[in-house]
Amino acid sequence: MSQERTQAHAKSMSDGVDCARREIEARPALGNKVFSAEKLLLARMMESLGNPPLELVLWDGQAIASAGKPPLARVLIRDRGALLKLIANPELGFGEMYTAERIEVQGNLVDCLEAIYRAFPRSGNGQIAQKLLAPFNGPLRNTQPRARRNIHHHYDIGNDFYKLWLDRDMVYTCAYFPDAAMGLEEAQTAKLDYVCRKLRLAPGETVLETGCGWGALALHMAKHYGATVKAYNISKEQIAYARERALAEGMEGRVEFIEDDYRNVGGEFDAFVSVGMLEHVGIEQYQDLGAVIDRSLKGAGRGLIHSIGRDRPSPMTPWIERNIFPGARPPSLSQMMQIFEPFGFSVLDVENLRLHYAKTLEHWLGRYEANIERVAQMFDPAFVRAWRLYLAGSLAAFRSGDMQLFQVSFNRSGENRIPWTRQYLYSS
Amino acid sequence: MSQERTQAHAKSMSDGVDCARREIEARPALGNKVFSAEKLLLARMMESLGNPPLELVLWDGQAIASAGKPPLARVLIRDRGALLKLIANPELGFGEMYTAERIEVQGNLVDCLEAIYRAFPRSGNGQIAQKLLAPFNGPLRNTQPRARRNIHHHYDIGNDFYKLWLDRDMVYTCAYFPDAAMGLEEAQTAKLDYVCRKLRLAPGETVLETGCGWGALALHMAKHYGATVKAYNISKEQIAYARERALAEGMEGRVEFIEDDYRNVGGEFDAFVSVGMLEHVGIEQYQDLGAVIDRSLKGAGRGLIHSIGRDRPSPMTPWIERNIFPGARPPSLSQMMQIFEPFGFSVLDVENLRLHYAKTLEHWLGRYEANIERVAQMFDPAFVRAWRLYLAGSLAAFRSGDMQLFQVSFNRSGENRIPWTRQYLYSS
Repeated sequence: MSQERTQAHAKSMSDGVDCARREIEARPALGNKVFSAEKLLLARMMESLGNPPLELVLWDGQAIASAGKPPLARVLIRDRGALLKLIANPELGFGEMYTAERIEVQGNLVDCLEAIYRAFPRSGNGQIAQKLLAPFNGPLRNTQPRARRNIHHHYDIGNDFYKLWLDRDMVYTCAYFPDAAMGLEEAQTAKLDYVCRKLRLAPGETVLETGCGWGALALHMAKHYGATVKAYNISKEQIAYARERALAEGMEGRVEFIEDDYRNVGGEFDAFVSVGMLEHVGIEQYQDLGAVIDRSLKGAGRGLIHSIGRDRPSPMTPWIERNIFPGARPPSLSQMMQIFEPFGFSVLDVENLRLHYAKTLEHWLGRYEANIERVAQMFDPAFVRAWRLYLAGSLAAFRSGDMQLFQVSFNRSGENRIPWTRQYLYSS
Repeated sequence: MSQERTQAHAKSMSDGVDCARREIEARPALGNKVFSAEKLLLARMMESLGNPPLELVLWDGQAIASAGKPPLARVLIRDRGALLKLIANPELGFGEMYTAERIEVQGNLVDCLEAIYRAFPRSGNGQIAQKLLAPFNGPLRNTQPRARRNIHHHYDIGNDFYKLWLDRDMVYTCAYFPDAAMGLEEAQTAKLDYVCRKLRLAPGETVLETGCGWGALALHMAKHYGATVKAYNISKEQIAYARERALAEGMEGRVEFIEDDYRNVGGEFDAFVSVGMLEHVGIEQYQDLGAVIDRSLKGAGRGLIHSIGRDRPSPMTPWIERNIFPGARPPSLSQMMQIFEPFGFSVLDVENLRLHYAKTLEHWLGRYEANIERVAQMFDPAFVRAWRLYLAGSLAAFRSGDMQLFQVSFNRSGENRIPWTRQYLYSS
């Protein structure tokens, strides 16, 4: 769901909400009774969301269901305040009230969220298209200090927490499942390999990695491809973990983990790779990133950027941006090209791995739920519910096509030492 | 080479040319003597082109070579008029004067042109990037009548001419060579197959093809994949040829060849395909094309667009646009996304087959040269040389990275019946 949609909705709803509030304030004695104005507003909200196949149950037991379709799940709205937040701004309100246990979902949370994503008409005529392509709410200026705060918010909440539901290598990006039935550990290793093969890494080569997470890819490139890697990250906890791992595995001479911003990178490399950082860069900084790659990549160097993306330019849902990923903005492909085109890089290959991210998230969510009691010992109930909603919502977004996963391979313009076909990626 | 470059060059040169002209007019008695001002201007032109490794020989026998590099070819400039045209506007002047036999190339024409493409600094600092991304010379409005004139100019010059150097199926687009040593006929068949496999065509499905050339792909889809095809084209001669072929091969019930503009398409289809038409559409018409695809593709439909492209937005060289392909403009990927993003199509796969187009052009140019006497019986000497220059220049452009070839596969947003991986494309 997009911010534009929320805004349009909020505008059309705000008069109605004010009206309901006035009705409530005028008749305080009525207490918990549901007003007909409230039911009308809820029905209008459902309509504006494309009538997802859900049954909404209010605190007094009254139920409202979308006509025609059997409901996939039941959404319990526990009090008037939750209802008003929801109808005033469904995208923000649902997350906030779910986190606060004032909205509950009976049935499968992922199916419920996927139904919401799918109900909204995304394709079709130019009018909707035009509306969704309208300019965003001002630019996203991720300066270095702000980027640091954004990353700290999400990635520095404790490595022990992430260990509960990530794979053993702590790879917190889309895995690659050559076979859909493959386990998560194996699929993350397959992804690291797939990236190295797309980069055509050769022993003795140097690699620059920006946004290295807990270091799995950098270590994999050094251990299995004989590369020497400089890996950058601005998350304190991730860098500390990665350094410990390099030391424990005897890789400290081959992989250098540097706690610094991608904009401060120095040196020249045979390959550039960035997996899961671009989402945090912000479109406005893409030309800076392109300049970093341009000054870092040798003439015959190869590059790969792996990022969550969108089918068209659109911001994150406001609840995710406020609570989970401040300053994040997954790009559409036309936006992503703003990294490459100003510097004349040549895009060789774009692969959309959307369903592999859905599969990855199935594993993460499964492990998260299996470890929910351990999570509850570490964090308060609101955190536990917020992270369930984030994981379930992300899974629903990739399943429904609201989110994409792009791997873009590139070279400098005119470099002819490139693979003749992609056959080599698919022979063992 | 770009139009901006030419313009910047022309501006810096025009004073010099005027000066040389005045010098010549003031001393008519000097006749064929080469003036020092002319040599200076020629040296400055070479510098502005990045000093390609060529030796320029003037009509009086004087030679000018780029310092440092051994020359790859020798360019003979036969008279003062040719020299002045060249230094005033090298991109237009070279083609015009080569065609008129007033400029000759000794050595390999393709190598000479590739050296020119490669010499110009394309990558590097933001200044050059900014300059090259400057807005173009006004929009390209390919209305339906204008599109018809443009296509008639190139494609209606006689099927017998194209038969001399295309493959037996008359496929006038980039072939796909699973093995670089494969012959042209086999590689064109492999390309038709590759496109069908990317589209995941199943028996009984319907296909819309816009810009069908001489009909090879439409007939291949019907014969080998059991599809029913509506194929559009505005070239009279191509459509006539394709209809004859359909009749001769008993395919007239399965493939309908329609002489009409892509904007007039009707009906709904399981697949949309367009191979080598987009170059002629013009960026300004991409949203119209997107709307055509949007109204033509069924919910689970698949699409593929195959087109020449660029690493960044830039127009055709002016000589090509004036003499070979009026109204043509190969897009960068960000421009190409203007077809898909406004309608929320989901891009699944982008493959850059640049070197396959270079290989295809090697075959075409080889066959053209082998049949040059037959061509000379059909057309005047200027045509013979212009087409040699066009084929050799295109080969040089793909070899040097000035041109790309993109195959873009797409679906409607949120469609999950997509291939799990790309493995299936590479197993026989």
